[in-house]
Amino acid sequence: MSLNLIQYHVSKLTTSEEILKVEQKYNKLRQPFFQKRSELIAKIPNFWVTTFVNHPQVSALLGEEDEEALHYLTRVEVTEFEDIKSVCNPNFILSALQYFDENPYFENKVLSKEFHLNESGDPSSKSTEIKWKSGKTQNKASRKRQHEEPESFFTWFTDHSDAGADELGEVIKDDIWPNPLQYYLVRVELISVPSSFLSLSV
Amino acid sequence: MSLNLIQYHVSKLTTSEEILKVEQKYNKLRQPFFQKRSELIAKIPNFWVTTFVNHPQVSALLGEEDEEALHYLTRVEVTEFEDIKSVCNPNFILSALQYFDENPYFENKVLSKEFHLNESGDPSSKSTEIKWKSGKTQNKASRKRQHEEPESFFTWFTDHSDAGADELGEVIKDDIWPNPLQYYLVRVELISVPSSFLSLSV
Repeated sequence: MSLNLIQYHVSKLTTSEEILKVEQKYNKLRQPFFQKRSELIAKIPNFWVTTFVNHPQVSALLGEEDEEALHYLTRVEVTEFEDIKSVCNPNFILSALQYFDENPYFENKVLSKEFHLNESGDPSSKSTEIKWKSGKTQNKASRKRQHEEPESFFTWFTDHSDAGADELGEVIKDDIWPNPLQYYLVRVELISVPSSFLSLSV
Repeated sequence: MSLNLIQYHVSKLTTSEEILKVEQKYNKLRQPFFQKRSELIAKIPNFWVTTFVNHPQVSALLGEEDEEALHYLTRVEVTEFEDIKSVCNPNFILSALQYFDENPYFENKVLSKEFHLNESGDPSSKSTEIKWKSGKTQNKASRKRQHEEPESFFTWFTDHSDAGADELGEVIKDDIWPNPLQYYLVRVELISVPSSFLSLSV
């Protein structure tokens, strides 16, 4: 066997396809638990705003009005697409949905941000346009963000400048989504909410 | 099912064990090809020094005497340990062996650098002490490297300051080891070495 042929065989022996299958299998196995979790969380008042406020990195992005608006956030949903190219790739491919109750800040019932690889394999993102209600100061967030303007929670939806290293997106996907309870509980323990909330069943 | 129980189930549904098995399976499948490749490469004069000199990042670390010494390098062997914790962890666990012919620079026949996780899970490295022959200027490389002293090829064996982000280690593992031929061939094409070398068989 020649060196060239050996290299050819080595190059065919890559793990990515089988690893993708493992990821897909586990994504499916986790799905019913995430579904049940969403139903339970929807019954807990202010679960998501509490979780976000208690998270050190997300909290840093929350102005007073952001926090007010997040009281209307009832559901968060993170989905990893099945055509994910490589699990070891730092550029994840996902959609993050946030469901809001009727609120005085914007018209949308759902805000989403999606990450995908474009045709040349580079990560890119797109999201729902936020329809701010008139007179809301957060209107500024829907303008094109200037570089000197600090990132805030809702500007995240309009910031597509670095989809390959989206910090808030990664925090939501890798830290909050796998276990939001750990951040929610900090506040719960501080204010001694009855633990019956946590054993709510569906 | 309570929120706590759901989180427990989700936390058990991690992919790392199955991904580890996939990695181990492919490491085994690649092994005979790497073995044959090593035997073939050993028959090609100056294969490794040529490969290293042609690699842009490695080349930058090569002084004139480093390059001279590397003419005695006959075999490189990279082994990933089977107890590797997570394939997505940037801190790889491996041993890189370099086999040398009798040479005027050092006594060692084999130089190795090993990366592993210590008890607290942090990456660390250790390596063979290079026994420099007297009068060799590379003796300085075996002294504790000062921060202002630039990295060179052989100081790599004595530098354990940042085992979690070992640049040369990562280049050898992820770029050269999977396909050294692509770097060797640059030189081969330039000086028109007979292609029969590349179809050498065992």
